[in-house]
Amino acid sequence: MIYFDNSATTKPTQDVLDTFCKVASSYYGNPSSVHSYGLQTEKLLDQARKQIASLLQVKEVEIYFTSGGTEGNNLAIKGIADQFQNRGKHLITSSIEHPSVENAFEYLKQRGFDVTYLPVDKNGRIRLDDLKKAIRDDTILVSIMHVNNEIGVLQPIEEIGKLLKNYPKIFFHVDAVQGVGKVPLDFHRSNIDLATISAHKFHGVKGTGVLYIREGIKLTPLLHGGNQEKTVRSGTENVPGIVAMAKALRLAMDDIDQKRKQMGAIQNYLRHELGKIDQTMIHTPMSYSAPHILNFSVEGFKAEVLVNKISEQQVYVSTTSACSSKRNEPSKTLIAMGIDENRAQSAVRISLSYENTIQEAEIAVQVIKNSIEKLLPVMRRSI
Amino acid sequence: MIYFDNSATTKPTQDVLDTFCKVASSYYGNPSSVHSYGLQTEKLLDQARKQIASLLQVKEVEIYFTSGGTEGNNLAIKGIADQFQNRGKHLITSSIEHPSVENAFEYLKQRGFDVTYLPVDKNGRIRLDDLKKAIRDDTILVSIMHVNNEIGVLQPIEEIGKLLKNYPKIFFHVDAVQGVGKVPLDFHRSNIDLATISAHKFHGVKGTGVLYIREGIKLTPLLHGGNQEKTVRSGTENVPGIVAMAKALRLAMDDIDQKRKQMGAIQNYLRHELGKIDQTMIHTPMSYSAPHILNFSVEGFKAEVLVNKISEQQVYVSTTSACSSKRNEPSKTLIAMGIDENRAQSAVRISLSYENTIQEAEIAVQVIKNSIEKLLPVMRRSI
Repeated sequence: MIYFDNSATTKPTQDVLDTFCKVASSYYGNPSSVHSYGLQTEKLLDQARKQIASLLQVKEVEIYFTSGGTEGNNLAIKGIADQFQNRGKHLITSSIEHPSVENAFEYLKQRGFDVTYLPVDKNGRIRLDDLKKAIRDDTILVSIMHVNNEIGVLQPIEEIGKLLKNYPKIFFHVDAVQGVGKVPLDFHRSNIDLATISAHKFHGVKGTGVLYIREGIKLTPLLHGGNQEKTVRSGTENVPGIVAMAKALRLAMDDIDQKRKQMGAIQNYLRHELGKIDQTMIHTPMSYSAPHILNFSVEGFKAEVLVNKISEQQVYVSTTSACSSKRNEPSKTLIAMGIDENRAQSAVRISLSYENTIQEAEIAVQVIKNSIEKLLPVMRRSI
Repeated sequence: MIYFDNSATTKPTQDVLDTFCKVASSYYGNPSSVHSYGLQTEKLLDQARKQIASLLQVKEVEIYFTSGGTEGNNLAIKGIADQFQNRGKHLITSSIEHPSVENAFEYLKQRGFDVTYLPVDKNGRIRLDDLKKAIRDDTILVSIMHVNNEIGVLQPIEEIGKLLKNYPKIFFHVDAVQGVGKVPLDFHRSNIDLATISAHKFHGVKGTGVLYIREGIKLTPLLHGGNQEKTVRSGTENVPGIVAMAKALRLAMDDIDQKRKQMGAIQNYLRHELGKIDQTMIHTPMSYSAPHILNFSVEGFKAEVLVNKISEQQVYVSTTSACSSKRNEPSKTLIAMGIDENRAQSAVRISLSYENTIQEAEIAVQVIKNSIEKLLPVMRRSI
């Protein structure tokens, strides 16, 4: 099988799973227990926090463990909005965010907040000028993703951070879920106040993540209880998952330049080969894009049909993002970029991990070409 | 080692871990992906939901997967409060709930809700009359735990459910975290609208849980996003954890009468043996208590010191609940029962699982007795 759907989720590496199982069976204590067995678990938790902080080049106190990307995004956005609503009720985000950001804002809108959605240019990038113009006296939060999950375009995070330095009352949140382990991002240097990370996107296990919160920032928790994670996130810590996440992150960051190069080479190959197919359009821009996502469409081919046909040969790619795919709506990122709806309905996403090879890409291209050929007689007529 | 801290967390059984690892490595797809590999994962998720529903004797559509007990309690309480606040803003709970219930109510209090905390009698049970008197026209939620986590007393859930049948506008939430797999509870027959379950309390892995929501009830989600779990709980499902939870629950429910009998026999033995120690008080009541928790105190012995001394011999018990233990406050359950503060500071909790044996209890009693003897010269003088 060729798994090219790594932006939906990745396979936990054997090392990561071994770590999970070792901790789960030998250090299963509750880190909140006062006895020595609990303390051992607490030590593992501290070590994982230290390791993750060091890999992300932030402080240990800035790492908060969550259940994953959706919780991280919700906690950051709702937590800041609730905590600082007396300062202002205006929020800014982009029109191409992940549903967990988009719908957190939708919720806040219904609760009396005012949300500005920045448009994107034809490459899927927001314009700094638009952001500047959108800022008001009552703006308290700007939330912009690092790597777009549907087409892989990079937002100008460092520049946004620089701009927002002039507005010390505005918090800057970055959904970094698709970027971690693929595109370097210095949270401190980019003036980021909050950043969301999810372990299962970089070969960790599902159900664990990190919210980075800059030291000194207080926000309203989503989960109240036993006051774990310095009261920001209550609930027994998923220690095996967290230790496994630390390992997965280390593996992902290890020799990251080489990994990026490898993914980039596969991406280039795919871009080139798929681009040759009749009436294909490549939606992932050439510059300012992550190395692991390639979004393309073949005119007249409904994405779902093509994805299913390809999967018959055990090559797994996706329509839009996994979190939106069952809604059967066209990619909102493509629509925001000005792609027409029919074309957007045809968009297919290939997403790589550092475990993929060029040989897999060669097979995948062949399978995609064959699938198109087989579907050709039925497809173009049916649309 | 003798692990008698099973109400803090349990050891995942080997079977459960094997299941986790098998799913994590062979079925790692995202259940939201449209390709066949994603569908396979979705099928596993459906099977787990079906199995858990059947074990809990509820409908599949009533099972919502969460990250654990704290999330379940927060989602139930805040979700109902937010959704139905126009109907009324009065909430009722008890004075001996788990911090994740207590602090969810504390949060709502700060948001303009009015909370009544029911007192308990000397055995730690609420009185139906108190509940009846507390009900007002604007009451929308009653939240009462099944098995108390600190002393193991059972609340009259079935009777409360019967009473609340007369108030169809009041939702009934039960924190069932400590009860599942130990004390049978029929959610439907007890007229329960919402019940919280956590996998790591019955030998599942940390980071997974269930919120049972009676069919037809809508509540405000805590996590917005990709609309998983029928929009109630967004976020990529932790499929390996969920399938492992289904297995753990099956194992816990398997031959449950025999398991209860065994835990009850150990509890009785401990009650009898520890009761013989000079100036000991057993706080877990004889009747209306779960079979797996025994709370006791030895006058003049600070619980933390005793717990640490015992743990030197690799016998692990706890002070109060794990989630409160680091706060160094006396058990609020005991205080609510009228136990004086000094005595409550001495309270130690032993909590069993179906994996514990009477032989372990015999050793533990010996270790406890020896520890008390060794500490005797220093302890009583120091208080």
